[in-house]
Amino acid sequence: MAMINTTKGQKKYKEAKKIILGGNMLLSKRPEMFLPNRWPSYYDKSNKISVTDLDGNIYTDMVCAVGTNILGYANSEIDKAVNKTIRNGNMTTLNCPEEVYLAEKLIEMHPWSSMVRFARTGGEANSIALRIARAATGKDKVAICGYHGWHDWYLSTNLKNDKNLKDFLLPGLEPKGVPKSLKNSTYTFLYNRIDQLEKLIKNNSDIGVIFMEVSRNEKPKNNFLHKVRKLATKNNIVLIFDECSSGFRENFGGLHLKYKVNPDIMMLGKALGNGYAITAVVGKKEIMKEAENSFISSTFWTERIGPTAALKCLEIMQKEKSWEYVTNYGKKVINVWKKLASNYNLKIKIAGLPALASFIIVSDNFLKYKTFITQQMLNKNYLASNILYASISHDQKLLNNYAENLDKIFAIISKCEKGEDLIDNYLKGPVCYTGFKRLN
Amino acid sequence: MAMINTTKGQKKYKEAKKIILGGNMLLSKRPEMFLPNRWPSYYDKSNKISVTDLDGNIYTDMVCAVGTNILGYANSEIDKAVNKTIRNGNMTTLNCPEEVYLAEKLIEMHPWSSMVRFARTGGEANSIALRIARAATGKDKVAICGYHGWHDWYLSTNLKNDKNLKDFLLPGLEPKGVPKSLKNSTYTFLYNRIDQLEKLIKNNSDIGVIFMEVSRNEKPKNNFLHKVRKLATKNNIVLIFDECSSGFRENFGGLHLKYKVNPDIMMLGKALGNGYAITAVVGKKEIMKEAENSFISSTFWTERIGPTAALKCLEIMQKEKSWEYVTNYGKKVINVWKKLASNYNLKIKIAGLPALASFIIVSDNFLKYKTFITQQMLNKNYLASNILYASISHDQKLLNNYAENLDKIFAIISKCEKGEDLIDNYLKGPVCYTGFKRLN
Repeated sequence: MAMINTTKGQKKYKEAKKIILGGNMLLSKRPEMFLPNRWPSYYDKSNKISVTDLDGNIYTDMVCAVGTNILGYANSEIDKAVNKTIRNGNMTTLNCPEEVYLAEKLIEMHPWSSMVRFARTGGEANSIALRIARAATGKDKVAICGYHGWHDWYLSTNLKNDKNLKDFLLPGLEPKGVPKSLKNSTYTFLYNRIDQLEKLIKNNSDIGVIFMEVSRNEKPKNNFLHKVRKLATKNNIVLIFDECSSGFRENFGGLHLKYKVNPDIMMLGKALGNGYAITAVVGKKEIMKEAENSFISSTFWTERIGPTAALKCLEIMQKEKSWEYVTNYGKKVINVWKKLASNYNLKIKIAGLPALASFIIVSDNFLKYKTFITQQMLNKNYLASNILYASISHDQKLLNNYAENLDKIFAIISKCEKGEDLIDNYLKGPVCYTGFKRLN
Repeated sequence: MAMINTTKGQKKYKEAKKIILGGNMLLSKRPEMFLPNRWPSYYDKSNKISVTDLDGNIYTDMVCAVGTNILGYANSEIDKAVNKTIRNGNMTTLNCPEEVYLAEKLIEMHPWSSMVRFARTGGEANSIALRIARAATGKDKVAICGYHGWHDWYLSTNLKNDKNLKDFLLPGLEPKGVPKSLKNSTYTFLYNRIDQLEKLIKNNSDIGVIFMEVSRNEKPKNNFLHKVRKLATKNNIVLIFDECSSGFRENFGGLHLKYKVNPDIMMLGKALGNGYAITAVVGKKEIMKEAENSFISSTFWTERIGPTAALKCLEIMQKEKSWEYVTNYGKKVINVWKKLASNYNLKIKIAGLPALASFIIVSDNFLKYKTFITQQMLNKNYLASNILYASISHDQKLLNNYAENLDKIFAIISKCEKGEDLIDNYLKGPVCYTGFKRLN
């Protein structure tokens, strides 16, 4: 089988690796995470869920920019609003009123909250939230559960032992360049293990903050979130929910609303601006205002595009109930995965919210299979591996076609699993990387 | 004299302070820093150096978004490029090739450099640079000189004593919420005091990084920058120049090029995207690559607008030699200040590069005078206090008008200084805030 031609993209990426630290800006968008030496790597154009690469190939995208574009690429309504903002100026000596409207809207959506701050990236929003929480409690130690970005405070967790973050999103994060004085400033606990958190808090009276995702790979069991909230309140600990990934996937706003458990501070990001940079720290005023004396300020947080895009994005989401659509679609895709696995007698595990789901095939050869899936789907003009980030532009016709293609791929994987064929015979290049350690 | 009507803007800002931590996103754009209770606070439209507020007043802007917009607001050439990027999608699962072109361009402009990384805010770029430097040297301690943002590593300087950063841009930065374990991780030295830096390095073998601005309020004296470079090289210390503010003001790229002193890492921000969020970490590959094993990654760093705007901005700057224009214009404005001061027998001090200059009137009443200047200029439809950020849209006709208005203001200040009049009689509201401590 002739492979799709991604020569220009691969050439450009080889150049990039020589002059850009890490090759690109986001680990999850590194070509090696998908299909080393073959991934198209760069885009020329995009629309809805269609992406055109530098070689002129047009793909259907199941990954949707790793979660930012629930409302599709180049959404015309949002872009119209953004274009107006650009005509009127993205930044001046004065501030943009849209930041006030957006603050009002987010507080209205999260009635437990009363104060907001904006930034441009999730890592920044997380750092602001932690600064506020530490200012409010006067305690520096943090109990963490989940993935919370690249900043020193989070990576310092691996200063004790680089396995400390292994159970979260990215195993093998190295704390190289993180100041060693931050050692022992964080403590990890596993999701749904209230006993671990209880023990941490009992043994460490200097924990002032619980920093966690509401739900990523597992759903809460045994009233886990309620128990966390109770424990935080009882011990005067600030509870922070990082909703950068989970927000807008199952409901309008933070996922905690669905579970009826309110944090003290929450961050929204990713989907908030449908691909325009905007992140928000949303919290209770009595806690937020404790950081009024802490210096938190950045020139580019005053950009008007961010809040403009977010306001229009929220309007469309609310009108379309996009979270219902992407959740339903995600469930259908998961059913395809399960059905195909069952048909071909493959053991799979599903993880994640329906709208940001993934599967693994339980096998020592999984990474090879994943590479094979990406390779074959790419050849059928799909950007797809073992993950789905659903958007409102994914439809049933597409799903049928996706399932047909995946059927043929699972058929071959099944033969390989039975020992009737060798997956290595099918791979046209190196196996994909995973996590972080493997990348270097 | 009737004051200009800024009712809508002030009403909106009062709402904002209730629901946004700090009231806005950037300290230097807080209305209280200019004219409490009177500043227009928000903009509706802008073009070149013209800004329209929510009440419909149109102002000429001498502050230019605190330094981002050298090429004027809503620059049509840049906006055309950005609009094309928006049409083609700001973000997809694939990366944008513009980040590679921009990396190539920045390296070409700074021949000592060979590797680049991009972020969206100056604070982030500074944190990335420090992570890289610490990874490269294995040493955590930093010698700092200048203003470098809101992050923990920088504010921790004031954990020992909140006067430690007083000689830099913002006196009174409180380290509230900064982990106390970072205490003693930084050491400060004053600009042009090579003796202080020598002593620091002699007494602290654990200093691995020198983090400084190339020049802000003073010019280097006695080969200061060369001596810093020599000291860094001799002691295997990574030298970082924060050029977020100084870049593009006097020359094309980092100001260090003018002084022929190369750092190991440099950051560019502010003017790089002419008001679109893009910041760059530019460095030597042998140092940058030491951080390949350190996790540095963020979703919104993959935005295409940032590098698109920067590429077009660089093209225009290079064509127009904008740094020559803004430097010459800044010199003319400084001459106006000096001449008026001399005419009215006022003692003034000028600080900053010509293109980002400021003056103070040496008097116990300076803050009142500054407030008065801002108030009177606002009433003449200027956004102006005691600072200038020059843009290519500032022209001679404007300067004449600006000087005429300032003449009348200096005349009154002169009378007040002589004791012939009272400045309090002229102020229509509270005195402006300064630095950071005064704001809270």
